[in-house]
Order: sequence, then C-alpha cells, then structure tokens
Amino acid sequence: MTARTLQGFMELLPQEQIVMEHMKSVIRHTYELFGFAPLDTPVLELAEVLLSKSGGETEKQIYEFKKGDTDLAMRFDLTVPLAKYVALYNNDLTFPFKRYQIGKVYRGERPQKGRFREFYQCDIDIIDRDDLNIVYDAEVLAVIYTVFKKLELPAFKIYLNNRKLLSGFLESLNIRDKTVDVLRLVDKIKKIPEAAFLEELRDLGLPEELNRKILEFITVKGSNEEILQALAAYNIDNESYRAGLEELQTVISQARNLGINPQNIQVDLSITRGLDYYTGTVYETFFDDYPEFGSVCSGGRYENLSSVFMDKKFPGVGISIGLTRLFDQLRGKGLLKIGGPTPNKALIVVQNAAYQTQAVTLAGELRRHDIAADVFLRECKFKKKMEYANKIKVPYLIIIGEDEAAQGNYTLKNMQTGDQQRLKLDELIKAVAA
Amino acid sequence: MTARTLQGFMELLPQEQIVMEHMKSVIRHTYELFGFAPLDTPVLELAEVLLSKSGGETEKQIYEFKKGDTDLAMRFDLTVPLAKYVALYNNDLTFPFKRYQIGKVYRGERPQKGRFREFYQCDIDIIDRDDLNIVYDAEVLAVIYTVFKKLELPAFKIYLNNRKLLSGFLESLNIRDKTVDVLRLVDKIKKIPEAAFLEELRDLGLPEELNRKILEFITVKGSNEEILQALAAYNIDNESYRAGLEELQTVISQARNLGINPQNIQVDLSITRGLDYYTGTVYETFFDDYPEFGSVCSGGRYENLSSVFMDKKFPGVGISIGLTRLFDQLRGKGLLKIGGPTPNKALIVVQNAAYQTQAVTLAGELRRHDIAADVFLRECKFKKKMEYANKIKVPYLIIIGEDEAAQGNYTLKNMQTGDQQRLKLDELIKAVAA
Repeated sequence: MTARTLQGFMELLPQEQIVMEHMKSVIRHTYELFGFAPLDTPVLELAEVLLSKSGGETEKQIYEFKKGDTDLAMRFDLTVPLAKYVALYNNDLTFPFKRYQIGKVYRGERPQKGRFREFYQCDIDIIDRDDLNIVYDAEVLAVIYTVFKKLELPAFKIYLNNRKLLSGFLESLNIRDKTVDVLRLVDKIKKIPEAAFLEELRDLGLPEELNRKILEFITVKGSNEEILQALAAYNIDNESYRAGLEELQTVISQARNLGINPQNIQVDLSITRGLDYYTGTVYETFFDDYPEFGSVCSGGRYENLSSVFMDKKFPGVGISIGLTRLFDQLRGKGLLKIGGPTPNKALIVVQNAAYQTQAVTLAGELRRHDIAADVFLRECKFKKKMEYANKIKVPYLIIIGEDEAAQGNYTLKNMQTGDQQRLKLDELIKAVAA
Repeated sequence: MTARTLQGFMELLPQEQIVMEHMKSVIRHTYELFGFAPLDTPVLELAEVLLSKSGGETEKQIYEFKKGDTDLAMRFDLTVPLAKYVALYNNDLTFPFKRYQIGKVYRGERPQKGRFREFYQCDIDIIDRDDLNIVYDAEVLAVIYTVFKKLELPAFKIYLNNRKLLSGFLESLNIRDKTVDVLRLVDKIKKIPEAAFLEELRDLGLPEELNRKILEFITVKGSNEEILQALAAYNIDNESYRAGLEELQTVISQARNLGINPQNIQVDLSITRGLDYYTGTVYETFFDDYPEFGSVCSGGRYENLSSVFMDKKFPGVGISIGLTRLFDQLRGKGLLKIGGPTPNKALIVVQNAAYQTQAVTLAGELRRHDIAADVFLRECKFKKKMEYANKIKVPYLIIIGEDEAAQGNYTLKNMQTGDQQRLKLDELIKAVAA
C-alpha cells in the first residue's frame, strides 16, 4: 500500500504547522478581543441545506454523496451553515449576535497551484434582528486591521466601498435594469485594460456616453477624504446613493476613532464583490507589494442572512480570511518564519540511562511551573543528543550526568549564547522561566 | 426550505461552545507543555489509504464516496492518517517525533444517545525509529493525568496494564494459539458476570482448571505495589511475561517521579483494549463516580505504526480523548459550568446614539490594552441595554451619557458588586484590567 495524500489538500511539516497554528491562535485571540463568541458547525450537512443558496459554480464543486437514503454534502463555506444556525436557534441567541468560526471548508476545484480543495476559513459576523447599526461595519474593519497587524504581515490595505453608491449612481443614469450586470463587470476593472472594460459595457447595450461616466465614477482616485468629497460633489439626487455616501462616511470616521491607521484603509469605488448577496459596505484586502495574492480577506454587509430558511429578517456584516491560501502564498514568498526554535523552552538530556529518573523528575517539576519541557529518552551517544538539540533549536538544554546526579544539581546551557551554568533546582526554574 | 442539522452531529449554543473551546484550549496547552508539536491532516483521504488497516466494523461505518474517478473517504480516526503521515514524511521528521492532533473524525453509526457521527478526537503519540524507550509510556500517563486535572473534571482513575503479561501468562499455560481470543474476551470481564466469563472461556475449548487460573490472574486486586508483587510472585519463566512486568514496574515508578498522584493510577490486569494493534502498555480512564461513561481516554503502546505502508519500523505510544462524547456526558450530568459570564471583560453602552463616537473610541483603547471589550450599538431604550448586559453576565459595564461625555470620563459599573464609579480613561483601564 502506497502512502499518499490527495492533491489539493494541504499537509504541513511540524515546523510549518507550528507557524500555521500560531496564525490561527492570533486570529482566534483577536476575534475574542473584539467580543466575538466561538461557533462550530458540522462539516457535513444535508445537501439541500447547503445548496439552498448556491449558484451553479458551487454545485459543480461541492462534495456531495449519499449515505443510506440521505443526500449529504461537505460545507463549501461557513456562511450557509451560519444562516442555518441562526434560523434554527435564533430564539436562544442574544442579539446582536457576534460569532467567529475557524474551520475547514471543501471545494472540489480542478487542482492547480495555490488552489486548495480543503481550506480554512476564519470568519466573523455580526448579526442583529431587523436592523444592524452601520457602526458595526467599522468594527469589522478594525478587526481585519488588528488581525493583520498582529500577524505581522507585509504592508496591506483594506479596500472599502458601499454598493449603494454605484447602484444609486446607475439608477440616476436610468439604467437600473442593468445594475447587476454592471456591478459584476466593475469587479473586473483591475484585471482588464480600460478599453476592454468599455468594450464590455458596450456589449451590455449601454450608450458610450454613459459608459465613460461609469468608468470615471469607479476610478475616482485620491485620499479617502478626497473621494468622499468627490462623491458628495456629484450631488446625485437618489435615495440609495445618499444612504451609501452617509454610510461610507460613518464607517471611515468611526474607523479613525477605533484607532485604525488611515494609511491601511482605501476607499475604492471599483470594489463591488461579485455576489448579489452584499447590499452595502464591501471589503477586500490586498498586500501593497503582492497584489498577485488577490484579496486575502473579504466580506461585506448583507440585508438578510437566513432568508431562504425563514421570514424573520437578520441583517449582518462579516468578513472571511482564507487562511490556507494566505499561508501558502506567504510561504511561497519566504515571508513566514518557518524553522524557528521549537516551542519547548527546555530539553533535558542525560549523559547515560542511569540518570533517567532524575531527568523525568525534573521534567515533571518544570511542567508544574508551566514551562514547556521535553525529555530526550532515546538511548544513544551523547553527540546524537546534542545534534537533536541543535536541530530543534531548543532555547535551553539541561544536562544531567554523574556530577550533577551526585551533587543534586543541573547543567543549564543557553543554546543561543553557549553559556553554561551549574544550578540548583530553584535557580534552574527561575533561569528557564525568565 | 427547512433549516435542519443532521442527527448525530453536535451543534452547540454559544454559552456551551465557550466551554467546549475552553476544554480544547486546556488540552492543546497541556499537550504543548509536554513538548508535543501540532499536526493537522486532511479530513478526506483516499479510501484505500484509510481502509488499509481497518476491520469490518469500520468499513461499514465509514463515509466513502466517489468524486470523479477517485474513491474518497472521511477519516474515522487520527491514527491511520498519522501512520500515512509518518510513512510519507519520515525523512523530514526529527525522531523521537511527538505530535498532537485535535480534529474531527467521522463514523456513520446508527444514531443513538451519546453516539456521534462527527466527533473530536484529541490524540498524542510519541514515535521513534526501531526502538522507543519505555519511559515514554510514563510520560503519556503524565499527560492524561495533567489534562484531566487541568480540566477540573470529577475524580478519575487511569487503569493501566501491559499486554505482554497476559500473553506471557497464556504462553506459560501452553495456550498460545488462543491468546487473541482470550485477550478479546478479557476485555469483557467488567461487563459480564464471572460465571458467564468462565462459560465463554469454556466455549474456546479450554480446560476448566486453566480457566480458573486465567480468571484469578486478571482479577488480582490491591494497590499497584501489591499487584506488582503478586505478579512477581507468580515467578513465571517466560520472556514476554518478564518484559511486561519490568515495563509495568518502570512505568509505575516513573509515573511517581513525574509527580502523578498514585491514587489516580490503578494497575488492572483485565484491561487489554480489544485491538490487536496494541502490544505493551495499555491505558483506559474512568471517572470514579460515573463508570457508565465508559473509558474517556484510552490508548497504548504499538510495535509498528506504519507497517502497512513501509518496511521501516516505527514503534509508538499514544492516547486519544473522545472529546465530543466526554463533553456530552459531562453536560448530561450537569458537570460543566455552562452559562457563565461572557469571556468579554467589559461592555460599553451609551445613554443615546449621540455618544457612539466616544463608545467606539473607548472600545479601541481597551482592546489596545488587550482587554476583550464589546460595544453595544443597537439603538434602543436604555433598559434594554441593561437587560442585555445582565443576560450576558459581563463583569464590567461602562456607561457613557451626557455628563460623562461633557466631563470626558466614564461610569464603570462592577456588575457583580453593583459598585459604580466615575473614572478617567487611565483609571478605567487600570480598574478593568485588574
């Protein structure tokens, strides 16, 4: 039998996994710092539940199968399970409901570089009954900002827009019936030249004059204040437009109050997120120096989370970090600190097996002092033990030999400086814990 | 569309999920304290890989399906994926290899109370090339002990045995060919009366005299020292028996050196673990007052982890906590502290929407001081805001109204004592962080 792992499924070596777990831990703690509660839903759901909301692409990618008479499917995102969860348990939840979920999702895409069939999504959503205060959209911005700062990632910008602006703008041009098509097209503007973009607008049957106006609108450049001023100067008499502008102004100003560095936020009217799902604020996040990564954290505001399941209205705002892909891309560019020292603080080795009891007893002591410690028990030459210690880059090596055993003390070696000391137990614990 | 969750799939309310996450976090941190590195393998694997080692029961329960031409299956434990992982990557691993994995596994069992089709396993294993020091079996014991102590669970005992003892004993009785059958049967002794046990031994075609000896052997009672003495007193001239006794003595004495309370360990010669897989030390863990939970943490020593995949020999020792079932059982007995205060330290509320900016600014400040804080932004009557604060049992409530905004300070209410103070920002941060 050949040991094999499926293509498109990430499997890491321990030194890589440690970095991945660190990233998950930072994300989890930041989400909790902002008051989000954990949620965990099944990987398997009824196929009809997962497919209730999906379009054609998803259906082709979904892992779906029968067990007995039941059609099952593996979740392809964490949003549909959340919609189901809120529909099922809303009477037991306290609103506003702020939840985070970090979990694997599945898409049977054609395997290719940078595409995974199993990958982690790290989601937050804030959901309320009937209405959700727009200031929460700034809170979500602050979460993304803080996560990326705490992850110590390369320079990034969160691009921000409000879909009501472009919808209102198109309405004011009397091309409301083409809104969905135009929004989808706008999403492409960064990927195709302007001429090609205009060509595609023309294909929608829109007059050249309007196409120029749309292009001009979505490519307004400047600081956030300049863009907000330009948007106000358009002076468009349309309800959706006015609401969108006011919301965007609020989000930008509250983001400042929340302490976000303005350099990390950029209003960009060409960000629309393809999905019809989003109705107001939309977010995308790019690294300044690695635009080829694409958006590494996206999301937005939606009107009604659980509409396919029930009549009650639950508006929300949320974002998702595609962690597996992000990890893979950062690793590809050498931007992760892989191969650093073991998370253990100390490794205990013995000169020979006669001192195993002392080693084991010491390991127990260190751990009771909350010091992560390992004891090397393989019986081999002392040189091999030193090679192991060097390989795992442990910060402290503790050696027990004849002298130490006789005197009831320990040799502590600082592996970075090479300094070596003979210490009693309490001194040793103090030195290693420092 | 009706929102439904599949039967046998655990889905928790936030106040329950918080407790579950706390348990996972304690387990994770304890595993790391003992020097185990994290591992994450795919939920989906090639069916032939997962079924390479399984018996008939597993095959019936496995979630298996085709995607394109590929036979896929969802993992039913974390051991087979580990065997695959070590076979694939052993050249890149540093041995002894100590890994932990906390992940969901899948078994399509008939749904019934306390049985889950998706459940968390929390595994540790220590694996070495060719030989693995027996002292590691005591390390594993110390990990179980420390996890259960840190989880603050009811009184428990880890039952311990070494399969070489019974194998050697049976060999010395010249019934080596029945060893596997007898070991399987011994596993039942706690569930059936002695007479029925003897009856089943008789069905194996063994003479009555031997059956009595076997029964006597596996039911030796006493302290660990007494049982070890009784085992030595048998004075059996058999290599397997002598090795088993020496190993068990080492594990017991090193467990003491590691600081395990002897009251939490009990040698029990009737513990064999059904699987042929285990070859030496075996563990099972029971709550003293809830034997009906069954073993909540089991494992043992095996000769060769990856034998189906390769010729190289990788002996190991490991255990697994079935967390989902454990959580469900503890919850059923009211033994979990569900419905405690929100993990947030503070909730900020405003007298009216005019002070949202102050609230949001304060939220940013608190979080920059690493204080988990939430800001309540729903616009509603103040009474409703207080109801929310009481419902989530937040430790500190911070109120911003006209006076506070004018004076640039905050009202801090300790929700447990009811004490209320008017504080400046730096005093507030100090008070809440304390």
